[in-house]
Amino acid sequence: MSIYVVGHKNPDTDSICAAISYAALKQAMGEDATAIRCGEINKETQYALDYFDVAAPILATKVEAGQKVIQVDHNEVGQAIDGLADAELIEIVDHHRFGGLNTAGPIYVHTEPVGCTSTIIANMFWDKNINIPKDIAGLLLSAIMSDTVLYKSPTCTDKDHDAAEKLAEIAEVDLHEYAMAMLKAGAGVGDKTPAEIAKTDSKPFSFGSYKALVSQISVMDTAEVLDMKADITAAMKDICDKEGYNLIMLMVTDIIEESTDLVFYGEPKKLIADAFKQDASGDCIHLPGVMSRKKQIVPPLTEAAAKF
Amino acid sequence: MSIYVVGHKNPDTDSICAAISYAALKQAMGEDATAIRCGEINKETQYALDYFDVAAPILATKVEAGQKVIQVDHNEVGQAIDGLADAELIEIVDHHRFGGLNTAGPIYVHTEPVGCTSTIIANMFWDKNINIPKDIAGLLLSAIMSDTVLYKSPTCTDKDHDAAEKLAEIAEVDLHEYAMAMLKAGAGVGDKTPAEIAKTDSKPFSFGSYKALVSQISVMDTAEVLDMKADITAAMKDICDKEGYNLIMLMVTDIIEESTDLVFYGEPKKLIADAFKQDASGDCIHLPGVMSRKKQIVPPLTEAAAKF
Ligand SMILES: [Mn+2]
Ligand SMILES: [Mn+2]
Repeated sequence: MSIYVVGHKNPDTDSICAAISYAALKQAMGEDATAIRCGEINKETQYALDYFDVAAPILATKVEAGQKVIQVDHNEVGQAIDGLADAELIEIVDHHRFGGLNTAGPIYVHTEPVGCTSTIIANMFWDKNINIPKDIAGLLLSAIMSDTVLYKSPTCTDKDHDAAEKLAEIAEVDLHEYAMAMLKAGAGVGDKTPAEIAKTDSKPFSFGSYKALVSQISVMDTAEVLDMKADITAAMKDICDKEGYNLIMLMVTDIIEESTDLVFYGEPKKLIADAFKQDASGDCIHLPGVMSRKKQIVPPLTEAAAKF
Repeated sequence: MSIYVVGHKNPDTDSICAAISYAALKQAMGEDATAIRCGEINKETQYALDYFDVAAPILATKVEAGQKVIQVDHNEVGQAIDGLADAELIEIVDHHRFGGLNTAGPIYVHTEPVGCTSTIIANMFWDKNINIPKDIAGLLLSAIMSDTVLYKSPTCTDKDHDAAEKLAEIAEVDLHEYAMAMLKAGAGVGDKTPAEIAKTDSKPFSFGSYKALVSQISVMDTAEVLDMKADITAAMKDICDKEGYNLIMLMVTDIIEESTDLVFYGEPKKLIADAFKQDASGDCIHLPGVMSRKKQIVPPLTEAAAKF
């Protein structure tokens, strides 16, 4: 019976490429593993899949009792495919904080504080002396370029850097040229509605007793998003009302300037003010040097909530 | 600044030997790691330390803010050294279920469903091509022999078996002869009081809303414990009253017969009856073939509690 390898809801390039690559590694080791996904492919990921001519994993609604599941690029239940509690979780490969992991028995878990799950998976291939096929190398490279925003994110480690350089050679691409083209394909608002922009690459979090959604959109020029700010915060209000969030935050991350404008709706705004030590009575604050949700947005909000 | 490597409270041979060995591995990799322990050395572990002429790690009361900590052989907060929430948890190497792991950021975690943490650590040495010194090999072997009860426990995997055989060669001991001598040194009641017997190798668990303590004593002959059953259950009543447990269970595991007599005090006894499908109105049930708390005692109690 197949083992399903799946990334988080609202999958980013790492969640898709790590699932495909880890399933490929398992197959190379003689196991019957299949990559699946629980959300739409974004434009950046589609660029990578097209470039290396790899099909997207099947879109799955849920997993069920009797099925074996491997989580990649996430471990928190709120971010996982529906039905995970009924299925048998057998492994986790990830690079995020733990958010209350409970398992019935011991399982295989490999997490590291690196910039990208795909960095861990590339090293697993190498540690096991299993060749990385050219297309898989391309996908692993794409994920590292995406998660580290071409090495610029503070989450990027030497291990990510080293893996990416080796993968670019195997994939036979010019790393900088390819990464910029891929990031560009995923950047900007395109034909997204304000509600879609507000939910770009979104992840739910609990900060103390507050339910929050933190989204992130990468842009070459923040104006194209900030010009629509009124429509976006109106859409955020709708989402809060319908989905029961206290707060929605959208990171508008300028990958050229390496800064983030945080657009937000909801209460308590004091949580944002305390976290980033700025006046947050409006609907947007500017955060120079901020590119990483995981390292620069979630921890200060967690700390601020703990002091509430 | 040193990194402290620590096993669980009420340490068994694996918690002590894994801490010493993982600190040795870290040191071989140029890191400043020190093994510590948060409980007394038992007789079995003392036999292993004496045999391979290794000093016990320092007995520590708590860890504090600003200190870096690596957990081995456990991950649940209730089993961890005091103060862990104040310190910085940087790694976990373990072979148990996860019991609600929460971390502020991403950390290194390596867990596997094998019989012993020391099996994972032995393989880390080999994967990194770092020589295992003879005394460290002896300690790793001791932990595997202890956790798997000389391969007899159902938690024992091929990986434990293979590691033990290789380690016995490095340690230059006859595996079966050494293991039997070590198990014998730790088996039996010795000069323990009934209260000490009731708390041998004890671990706290929550089964649904019930707070339970599950202890385990290994014996060559169950009579030496069962003859003291009235005194032991009286001691259990005391512990329940003073420490707020609903239930205390003592696994009296016959390592020759490969069976367990479960002696218990507290309520609800129906939890035990449901879990093991036996009349539990008395104070003891016989469980043929049962040797593993992790695999054969905790899961049925967890399941029974879920249906309460
Ligand atoms: Mn991701
Ligand atoms: Mn242990």
